[in-house]
Amino acid sequence: MNIGVLGGGQLGRMLALAGYPLGHEFVFVDAAPEALSGLGSHIIAAPDDDAALTELAGRVDLVTYEFENVPVASARAVAARVPVYPSPAALEASQDRLAEKRFFQSLGIPTAPFAAIGDRPALEQASRTLGMPFILKTRRFGYDGKGQAVIRTVGDITPAWDRLGDVACIAEGFVRFARELSVLAVRGRDRALAFYPLVENLHADGVLRRSLAPAPAMSPELQQAAETIATRVLEALDYVGVLAIELFQVDGTLVANEMAPRVHNSGHWTIEGAETSQFENHVRAITGAPLGSTAPVGVSAMLNLIGDLPDIAAVLAVKGAHLHLYGKQSRPGRKVGHVTIRSDDPAALARRTKRIEALLG
Amino acid sequence: MNIGVLGGGQLGRMLALAGYPLGHEFVFVDAAPEALSGLGSHIIAAPDDDAALTELAGRVDLVTYEFENVPVASARAVAARVPVYPSPAALEASQDRLAEKRFFQSLGIPTAPFAAIGDRPALEQASRTLGMPFILKTRRFGYDGKGQAVIRTVGDITPAWDRLGDVACIAEGFVRFARELSVLAVRGRDRALAFYPLVENLHADGVLRRSLAPAPAMSPELQQAAETIATRVLEALDYVGVLAIELFQVDGTLVANEMAPRVHNSGHWTIEGAETSQFENHVRAITGAPLGSTAPVGVSAMLNLIGDLPDIAAVLAVKGAHLHLYGKQSRPGRKVGHVTIRSDDPAALARRTKRIEALLG
Repeated sequence: MNIGVLGGGQLGRMLALAGYPLGHEFVFVDAAPEALSGLGSHIIAAPDDDAALTELAGRVDLVTYEFENVPVASARAVAARVPVYPSPAALEASQDRLAEKRFFQSLGIPTAPFAAIGDRPALEQASRTLGMPFILKTRRFGYDGKGQAVIRTVGDITPAWDRLGDVACIAEGFVRFARELSVLAVRGRDRALAFYPLVENLHADGVLRRSLAPAPAMSPELQQAAETIATRVLEALDYVGVLAIELFQVDGTLVANEMAPRVHNSGHWTIEGAETSQFENHVRAITGAPLGSTAPVGVSAMLNLIGDLPDIAAVLAVKGAHLHLYGKQSRPGRKVGHVTIRSDDPAALARRTKRIEALLG
Repeated sequence: MNIGVLGGGQLGRMLALAGYPLGHEFVFVDAAPEALSGLGSHIIAAPDDDAALTELAGRVDLVTYEFENVPVASARAVAARVPVYPSPAALEASQDRLAEKRFFQSLGIPTAPFAAIGDRPALEQASRTLGMPFILKTRRFGYDGKGQAVIRTVGDITPAWDRLGDVACIAEGFVRFARELSVLAVRGRDRALAFYPLVENLHADGVLRRSLAPAPAMSPELQQAAETIATRVLEALDYVGVLAIELFQVDGTLVANEMAPRVHNSGHWTIEGAETSQFENHVRAITGAPLGSTAPVGVSAMLNLIGDLPDIAAVLAVKGAHLHLYGKQSRPGRKVGHVTIRSDDPAALARRTKRIEALLG
């Protein structure tokens, strides 16, 4: 099939690399599809460019996204012409942090306490109802820790409001979590469901640094709880494709943080560490093919390459290390690639992960 | 790096899919690069087109091949301008079945008995010295069983000669083998060596149908014998890249049949079934990167898709089945894709392989 993709970053690149062996070809819409390095065809335009979307709809059998800040109106306009997976409703539910929290609530999925913040008095009220510390976030266009401020004391309220208060915000109570997890789930056009094992994630400055998969010290109950949460979301949205939900583990329970209606950084380990990668399963799902096995193959660690590239030869010399570069210019804070280390032996994995972490500095 | 590839079939396609994550880009020279489906850049010309090769040398950092019938003179002309891996000498050694047999002999590697056939009397003489049955083969441009005739009785001599005798030939004695094996080996620019486990191959009508990897019922001695043969060849040619050698197992010993100075159909299982695929290791080798682990990950079976495509959804529904389509139009006898089935459990692998074989008819 010809598959249209809104966005042309590293997720699009990895979707294409997974989709070619299945016989598919790709057309990307992106104003600067640098990460694609010539993979697939490109329409050089923003993903809300009407003419570009009309051209895209004429060239492909179906459309998907590789980033979620596509305007919902644009996605709906495309969906009027060709099938779009997941549906624009999934995009809408995940673009606005307030709508997302209310959506989780409506499904009985635990979240952090939260309050809509439309003006300064609402922020002061939230500081009393949520307690300190809490987090002020813009409702829209946040990713990788952007559009957020932690409020620890009353003195933090004014600078946070000055920085973020121009746009609609949400205040979220702090969750004292034991660890951050994520669940990657996939639903086919035939409504079949599959779930990868829970992943343990480590963030720094709001950016994912490391994922361990399957998450160490997991219980079947926690995996089941994650699958129940994901199933509710997938079915409520009549979702097709891969969905990621970031979770906090609090004692033995899970609290939903946010979701991404697409393949996700915390699922990159699946390229080598699972029988079928998240990228292949997304392509299988949206094209109506049977889903592939989500069983892990050994144990894996995924480390993001952020800013500069490490000594590539030294990375490749580590046994079981798999390098993925994104074809992007280095820039401080930018994700330019990742390394997955895979092994059948958890002790060897830990040793080799330490060696790679030392190379990343 | 920018990597030039002479040829643009499925092997080139899979080289590119393995090379993108390592940050490389590809320029292919092929008169009909259908299998590439737009992957990489293309110079649409035969790989012996002087102008195309001059253009290629100006655009890339190094050059490799994905098929071995590139004229040696063309490879040498490119090598005068940019590095070519493996060297044109490796190409030369494998293009002519007679030179190849003599090369094996010179390294003390057992081969079938053989005789150069330049005229009809030589063929009659060979029928006496080699004994019946034996095989008449053209010295050059043979692949997938083409350019061969089995001579079982004196009555077969005239038709075989009429069909093949216009060109230089070789007569090869029959090897009564227990099974066909192949060894995939790789040598880096730093002369490091790595070997995949021996693979068991099943051919029909001269075309590979199925590979099992690692080959069942292997002994460490046989693996060692294969590695010794491969090492002699790699070092004699100062080889860089992946090399495949097809072998016959005769009792507990190995007899070399032929070699291919490139990634090989009997190594396709390594994409899912080994820690590092043959394609990635070829790219690592020619770019001077450290070689990746050649350890198997579970057990694998690779089945070629020949002629028509099977029911794709039925194939993808089999657990552990990995589909690779080549973007080529169906045509009788043409390799249009392959399926690798991978499992940690040999019994499950055998069951699932049977299910896929039933789907292939």
